[in-house]
Amino acid sequence: MPAPLRLGLAGLGTVGIGVVKIVQRHADLLAARAGRPVVITAVSARDRAKARDADLSGYAWETDPVALAERDDVDVFIEVMGGSEGPAKLATEAAIAAGKDVVTANKALLAHHGQALAEAAEAAGRVIRFEAAVAGGIPVIKALTEGLAANQMRRVMGVMNGTCNYILTRMANAGLPYETVFEEARQLGYLEADPNLDVGGIDAGHKLSLLAAIAFGTRVSFDAVELEGIGNVSIDDIRMADDMGYHIKLLGVAQMTGRGLEQRMTPCLVPAESPLGQLQGGTNMVVLEGDAVGQIVLRGPGAGEGPTASAVMGDVMDIARGVRTATFGRPATSLVAAIPAKSATPAPYYLRMTLLDKPGALAKVATCLGEAGISIDQMRQINQPGEDDNAVVLIVTHKAAPADIAHALAAFPVTGVVQGAAVAIRIEEV
Amino acid sequence: MPAPLRLGLAGLGTVGIGVVKIVQRHADLLAARAGRPVVITAVSARDRAKARDADLSGYAWETDPVALAERDDVDVFIEVMGGSEGPAKLATEAAIAAGKDVVTANKALLAHHGQALAEAAEAAGRVIRFEAAVAGGIPVIKALTEGLAANQMRRVMGVMNGTCNYILTRMANAGLPYETVFEEARQLGYLEADPNLDVGGIDAGHKLSLLAAIAFGTRVSFDAVELEGIGNVSIDDIRMADDMGYHIKLLGVAQMTGRGLEQRMTPCLVPAESPLGQLQGGTNMVVLEGDAVGQIVLRGPGAGEGPTASAVMGDVMDIARGVRTATFGRPATSLVAAIPAKSATPAPYYLRMTLLDKPGALAKVATCLGEAGISIDQMRQINQPGEDDNAVVLIVTHKAAPADIAHALAAFPVTGVVQGAAVAIRIEEV
Repeated sequence: MPAPLRLGLAGLGTVGIGVVKIVQRHADLLAARAGRPVVITAVSARDRAKARDADLSGYAWETDPVALAERDDVDVFIEVMGGSEGPAKLATEAAIAAGKDVVTANKALLAHHGQALAEAAEAAGRVIRFEAAVAGGIPVIKALTEGLAANQMRRVMGVMNGTCNYILTRMANAGLPYETVFEEARQLGYLEADPNLDVGGIDAGHKLSLLAAIAFGTRVSFDAVELEGIGNVSIDDIRMADDMGYHIKLLGVAQMTGRGLEQRMTPCLVPAESPLGQLQGGTNMVVLEGDAVGQIVLRGPGAGEGPTASAVMGDVMDIARGVRTATFGRPATSLVAAIPAKSATPAPYYLRMTLLDKPGALAKVATCLGEAGISIDQMRQINQPGEDDNAVVLIVTHKAAPADIAHALAAFPVTGVVQGAAVAIRIEEV
Repeated sequence: MPAPLRLGLAGLGTVGIGVVKIVQRHADLLAARAGRPVVITAVSARDRAKARDADLSGYAWETDPVALAERDDVDVFIEVMGGSEGPAKLATEAAIAAGKDVVTANKALLAHHGQALAEAAEAAGRVIRFEAAVAGGIPVIKALTEGLAANQMRRVMGVMNGTCNYILTRMANAGLPYETVFEEARQLGYLEADPNLDVGGIDAGHKLSLLAAIAFGTRVSFDAVELEGIGNVSIDDIRMADDMGYHIKLLGVAQMTGRGLEQRMTPCLVPAESPLGQLQGGTNMVVLEGDAVGQIVLRGPGAGEGPTASAVMGDVMDIARGVRTATFGRPATSLVAAIPAKSATPAPYYLRMTLLDKPGALAKVATCLGEAGISIDQMRQINQPGEDDNAVVLIVTHKAAPADIAHALAAFPVTGVVQGAAVAIRIEEV
């Protein structure tokens, strides 16, 4: 049997320990499938003394991940430390410079430095693989880069932050406000140290930017992702959208349009009956749309020890089997700088507003919309008990340009009948 | 740029023409992603004169697919003719003997001869790839063989015959009996020339046997698949299962148990709210369960020109990129002969029977079940208008062994209160 593939593992948190467990538990299975043994030779983490749920005594210890990356007895450097700068970046660069292949779960690193790292790796004849960086255990990087490689991709969508989906579905199912569920999630340990990475959509935006690069052959451009978190999603809108047949998701959408590359990670309404609409809790879902294949939907656990380690080790197995596909599916030097679309593709919108309940009020709103070029698909008025002077009005528009929606929202206060600010949420057609 | 990868295409039906269209439409995209041009050099089909929706004038024509497979200007032999014997088998064997890689959409060929073909290919240093043979455009072979390669697989399930799912969902949605919808499907051209391949579960059983080989490292053993088609699924059961919160699917299940390898392709009840339960029409779904990853669900088009050609070309792209993974994910000579499980894993069952509506009738049925060691989870009695002497009784059991269910069914007639044969359908826990 050929020589073992030797792994150097940087990071011994949840994912790193998951990797150790798979390598130890499945030594025979991995060797049978890869045609060669897969072994860990050295590990690295900040605190050697910390109690960990795995036997690390057979591995060399490095305090410095850069030293780990440069070891002669390491073929593949596995980076599961996290962070877009600092040790993760330095060690990944060192691994490439030392002629190692890299497997990483680090979406932030690649969203910010993916282009430079991929170019460096490809110049050195090395590969960087990152299945675990996007949608946890779902093999979506593989599906998109390899399985659908003969498709011109039309659109890529995804619910890719399990914490946000947990919060939104828990709000919906328990009827609780955002702040309460956010606090629950914090106590359950579901939130990153900086919660804005989750609820601000940044983590999911990182993932979307990586998918977009593969799908459209463009350089990763996280800075061009339109980002809006879930902090302003109200329980009222969740309930009322539900009444209209929609669920609210933090949905990532990337598509190449005649106006440029559109990348959005924002709260959207999706039909309650659609696969995206039915997604509950921490589960992730990615929807891939190609010109030949049509629509493929992938669903699975977006985080956790086993799923994320499964993805890391899937990449390791590919390297063990000799797969050498370019990081983003084509040579990094051939990726083009995308022109960001200045505005999103027209879509139906959900509008919620409070109206003075007096004759002619609805007509004024309808006039505003008409003057903005927006036509109405559905309208519903809800008179709230105890608030005799006000009524809540829900509107689902036909497809409208975001600029036209903004125009209408700006005109509402002038009517004198719209109380406070109206809410507008995009309805993504899935 | 390196030399082109040259394709010889045998079969110019729907899938073959889909392949031609992708190669012609996406020449630049394929070259950019593969790092080399991908071109068709020669084609073959039974009838050269037939009108086809593609320009084939640039390709050499072979009447005999074996001659096509042996051409010096062909690197990859694409077999989209179909049929487990005859030309498809001869030409595939000839291609391997002539040192070509093979991409096939032919589930029947591999279900019957996959072991011999894989051994021959691997002995010759060639690859056989068959993404298009299972679940159309869904990259499930790739997900299972590569993406989840670090998992011990626990169970693989799937709705993998779109025609059967179309028939079952159409029966449910329109309230029509099987015979009527079968005839509709025939007129819509949804059925194979031999409809039993579809509605008898054979086609889907072929696919399941291929997934099982990869998942469990066993030789393809289609003959050991427990097969039951959808011909006996009644509209009554579809309706009554729905009332109890279940949908009926032709569901494939493969799992390795202490009693051996279980492979079933049979009508099952699944929870209406589950992803499998919600699957409508011709769409396919595969569920992959691994010890590390948990559950991954893949959904997409199971047939059609674009989706199937997308899968064929995904395999071609892998070959163009130098991917050389073994046919079933490990050397064919290392696959072991599976011991078929003699009976299925215990599961809850749905039972429907007609009872004489007289005192003590239900008690007799409950006694039968109790004596067979079966306990009852739910029971519902439906008195049908106009049939005063009879009542329909629906029972959902707790988990029971198939042999115990058979025992109870055999005992029912002896009670003197069960009219005709009782229906028993397995409820797969998904």
